[in-house]
Amino acid sequence: MSVITVIPGDGIGPEVIEQAMLTLDRLQLGLEFDVLDHVNADTFLRTGVALCDEDFERVRSSRSVLLGAIGDPRVGSPAYGRGVLLRLRFELDLYVNHRPAKLLHDRLSPLRADSARAVDCIVIRENTEGLYTGAGGSVHPGSEHEIALDVDLSTYHGTARIVEYAFSIARREVCMVDKANAVEFGGGLWQRCWRAAAARHPDKASRHLYVDAAAMQMVTDPTGFDVIVTNNSYGDILSDIASAVAGGIGTAASANLNPERGFGLYEPVHGSAPDIAGKDIANPVGAILSAGLLIGDLGHHEAAAALRAAISQAVAAGETTPDLGGSLDTRGAGEAIRARL
Amino acid sequence: MSVITVIPGDGIGPEVIEQAMLTLDRLQLGLEFDVLDHVNADTFLRTGVALCDEDFERVRSSRSVLLGAIGDPRVGSPAYGRGVLLRLRFELDLYVNHRPAKLLHDRLSPLRADSARAVDCIVIRENTEGLYTGAGGSVHPGSEHEIALDVDLSTYHGTARIVEYAFSIARREVCMVDKANAVEFGGGLWQRCWRAAAARHPDKASRHLYVDAAAMQMVTDPTGFDVIVTNNSYGDILSDIASAVAGGIGTAASANLNPERGFGLYEPVHGSAPDIAGKDIANPVGAILSAGLLIGDLGHHEAAAALRAAISQAVAAGETTPDLGGSLDTRGAGEAIRARL
Ligand SMILES: CC(C)[C@H](C(=O)O)[C@@H](O)C(=O)O
Ligand SMILES: CC(C)[C@H](C(=O)O)[C@@H](O)C(=O)O
Repeated sequence: MSVITVIPGDGIGPEVIEQAMLTLDRLQLGLEFDVLDHVNADTFLRTGVALCDEDFERVRSSRSVLLGAIGDPRVGSPAYGRGVLLRLRFELDLYVNHRPAKLLHDRLSPLRADSARAVDCIVIRENTEGLYTGAGGSVHPGSEHEIALDVDLSTYHGTARIVEYAFSIARREVCMVDKANAVEFGGGLWQRCWRAAAARHPDKASRHLYVDAAAMQMVTDPTGFDVIVTNNSYGDILSDIASAVAGGIGTAASANLNPERGFGLYEPVHGSAPDIAGKDIANPVGAILSAGLLIGDLGHHEAAAALRAAISQAVAAGETTPDLGGSLDTRGAGEAIRARL
Repeated sequence: MSVITVIPGDGIGPEVIEQAMLTLDRLQLGLEFDVLDHVNADTFLRTGVALCDEDFERVRSSRSVLLGAIGDPRVGSPAYGRGVLLRLRFELDLYVNHRPAKLLHDRLSPLRADSARAVDCIVIRENTEGLYTGAGGSVHPGSEHEIALDVDLSTYHGTARIVEYAFSIARREVCMVDKANAVEFGGGLWQRCWRAAAARHPDKASRHLYVDAAAMQMVTDPTGFDVIVTNNSYGDILSDIASAVAGGIGTAASANLNPERGFGLYEPVHGSAPDIAGKDIANPVGAILSAGLLIGDLGHHEAAAALRAAISQAVAAGETTPDLGGSLDTRGAGEAIRARL
């Protein structure tokens, strides 16, 4: 019995996670859920700690994690997100943030009809270093002499393994994205690790783009990308653009992985969306697709493929929430997918 | 007599700058050009220094600078760009990077026909701090123990002035973009300076977006933006996306400004584009529009408006280079604009 920790989180998180769990139930894969529904902003605001050490240990000893969304406008401090999402990524060493972007249906593209818009790429984002470590500080805070420093940190260890992972999963090409023409030290290290990995994988094509050019090409020519590998910040930005051109953030799924340990945290790319929380219009596709990534990684390849097909069919039939042009509520959109399984 | 230093630079730089200079000549504004055509990659490769101190002083004592493009695939080291473009930005304290993005003609948009695609916004990018200062280093370089650090640096001085500039030029709204939910120290300072500036400008609306959401909205809803203010890196990326949705990087202009000193460096947003250099197909619109920003800042407002109108008309008539769907060469596209002046 595989125990899956579930953290519904904030805003629309619980709504979409409910649909993901119902869908996994329908597949009858023998999964057991350990739901931590107190890991949210309410708990943080009351106690100052959303994910306590005991819960962290429950997560660690489970098989994988399914997370809804973490974020609440009442929380001003970055300590909340750092204590939950970033803590899980960092302390479980989930160094791969795997973000596929595939246009589910032609009508969802924001790009013009006569363009090559059928994007089908994966952004591989380094998930434990970069600007996200918290290294840095502020001198003379709050004054007119304040100087704020955040360290953009790349290690050989962290860079080499993420670039290698990208080559290992690429179908045809790896595009490495950095800003080595301006951000020199990290840029130099990424260039070195990328060239070495490319030499180890002569069967895969490889190219390099600066992040500004890559962001632009994601709009003007998204079908040119297969696998993109980049650092934490650029991956955050590029994967959001990729999901926009793939039909909207409501359909985007992601996996935070430690491939060696076979552990993953799966979450939709969208946030807690407080503006639509509780209205029963949140799109469950991102969460259900994330659950699909989860079961695929557990070895249930047929069920994962069936789930992807059911999602494509429901979306093609227009049986979706309003953000994709349909008129179903969150549960209805989930049911439309389950009816096709 | 205002002396304008001209640095044609590399690749397509000289081709597009020639058209910009011919166009300024046609306007008969009494400008004198001091052309530094040796400031390029050839000189850097031969001598190790592309912009020597003497040339730097000529630039400093001139009225403004018009620059084509700096960049050459033969140059591996970031020292070249740092020694020219970044040196000028930093040592002349050109702290505002002003990047307008306006769709010149409906047919140029990469976005779908039924969307709100008539983008008309300005990205105000901080231009002297952030990840661009060169602060940082590498420990155990070249080894498997390498750690590379680049410091993302924001000062109160630098942040307060750029946010204030953004409010001073906004027509209706300032959208401040950062990543305060993950990059805490700089994020906190930007939030503080932004709130203070918003309070000083109650006549302007204001909102905040995280950079990933802003990049996405630039694709899904670009008409929602008026003025965006952000740091050096995010401004680099967002202004490129903005120019993509505004019809392509070939039409994008920029001004690097020190508003207090009234000094500016004007350059197209595109790079040296080595793949099309020498083919006479480079689009001169970005360079000519940049020249338009330059003369506007010199007080020639009517001439600047006439130039913008001539560009719009030539583009509307399809008298453009191939990247915009026309069949003219670089000179022909420049002539088509001049014929309308
Ligand atoms: C060449 C590069 C260093 C530069 C930058 O990032 O500032 C360019 O992309 C730009 O936007 O002017
Ligand atoms: C909430 C935020 C810290 C997070 C990130 O930037 O990693 C989110 O945007 C994401 O992409 O998962």
